[in-house]
Amino acid sequence: MKLYDGGRAPNPRRVRIFLAEKGIEIPSVPIDMGAMGHRSAEITALNPLQRLPVLELDDGTIITESVAISRYFEELNPEPALFGKGAVGKAQVEMWQRRVELHLLATVAAAFRHIHPAMVEWEVPQIPEWGEANKPKALAFLDILDERLGKSAFIAGDDYSIADITGLVAIDFFKPARIQMPEHVTHVRRWHDAVSNRPSAKA
Amino acid sequence: MKLYDGGRAPNPRRVRIFLAEKGIEIPSVPIDMGAMGHRSAEITALNPLQRLPVLELDDGTIITESVAISRYFEELNPEPALFGKGAVGKAQVEMWQRRVELHLLATVAAAFRHIHPAMVEWEVPQIPEWGEANKPKALAFLDILDERLGKSAFIAGDDYSIADITGLVAIDFFKPARIQMPEHVTHVRRWHDAVSNRPSAKA
Repeated sequence: MKLYDGGRAPNPRRVRIFLAEKGIEIPSVPIDMGAMGHRSAEITALNPLQRLPVLELDDGTIITESVAISRYFEELNPEPALFGKGAVGKAQVEMWQRRVELHLLATVAAAFRHIHPAMVEWEVPQIPEWGEANKPKALAFLDILDERLGKSAFIAGDDYSIADITGLVAIDFFKPARIQMPEHVTHVRRWHDAVSNRPSAKA
Repeated sequence: MKLYDGGRAPNPRRVRIFLAEKGIEIPSVPIDMGAMGHRSAEITALNPLQRLPVLELDDGTIITESVAISRYFEELNPEPALFGKGAVGKAQVEMWQRRVELHLLATVAAAFRHIHPAMVEWEVPQIPEWGEANKPKALAFLDILDERLGKSAFIAGDDYSIADITGLVAIDFFKPARIQMPEHVTHVRRWHDAVSNRPSAKA
């Protein structure tokens, strides 16, 4: 198998962190997204949505979407469980993963893509008003996350999970999106320091 | 347990269809979203994101997010498998579920929420330009889905899955979002007729 990897962008990083947490190493094919490599004929043939990462299995099966790629490896290598354990545990991880993805990563990404001049070819049409509208949405969710992290070590509970990976990538995206991290979210800051200090964060 | 149900909106319907496909009946508490019942103190205490549906277990555990609620029931009642079987099968369902949710349901919902006059209190600020920008995104994905459904009976493969539920709910949302279903997506139309004729579609 091989992983078509997109470098610094949030979704490729999510899969690299996931694999690092699992201790899995697979061959990767670097694609230069800055040079629009994700829109090449090669990648379009693998993923008509022209997004990375893309996992190609040895039999040619294609898996796209960072969470779907991660779930594939969770099924093959269940430990450590990064999608939760048991019906309630798995549902809690899914709930928080989605909350963080839809209300934090997606809002920060929208702020970046609709405002940053470098994104003018990526997001057509760029609508700066929509980008700006996403900043307060991201900050409002951060308060909900802060309350949550006042009660649990990690986002979905006592154990590190894919929800933490999505959260880490989202928070690290604040800087390019030019969103200031507020001082008052002390639990988020404690958690962010903890997950950033894990070796996987460098992946 | 009980399910706080939000009526006709897409996400509450997703869970009802899922439960109907599984043959599961649980007590539900109807919440009038037209009267902003999802922003009541009662629902806010259960889900700070003020969204429905919300599943409350007998021990008080709260599960929100329609896909997370669905996964909880999948874990308890694995048959029929609506999240796929085996590592590749589960990854394929997750991939297509996410593609349909992020590129079809989300774009149709954005067109509705940012343009429809009835949504002015729901989506603040309403940005009609962003709503309009989502219509071609939805239609572009429909072409990808049509190509897919030319090759397989259901969205994620040979078997009905949660990806079909998300797809059905998204297509049925075209009308309120005032997006015209194109004539040329004949495979999508064949599939839509088939999934609409299942008893679960009435849920």
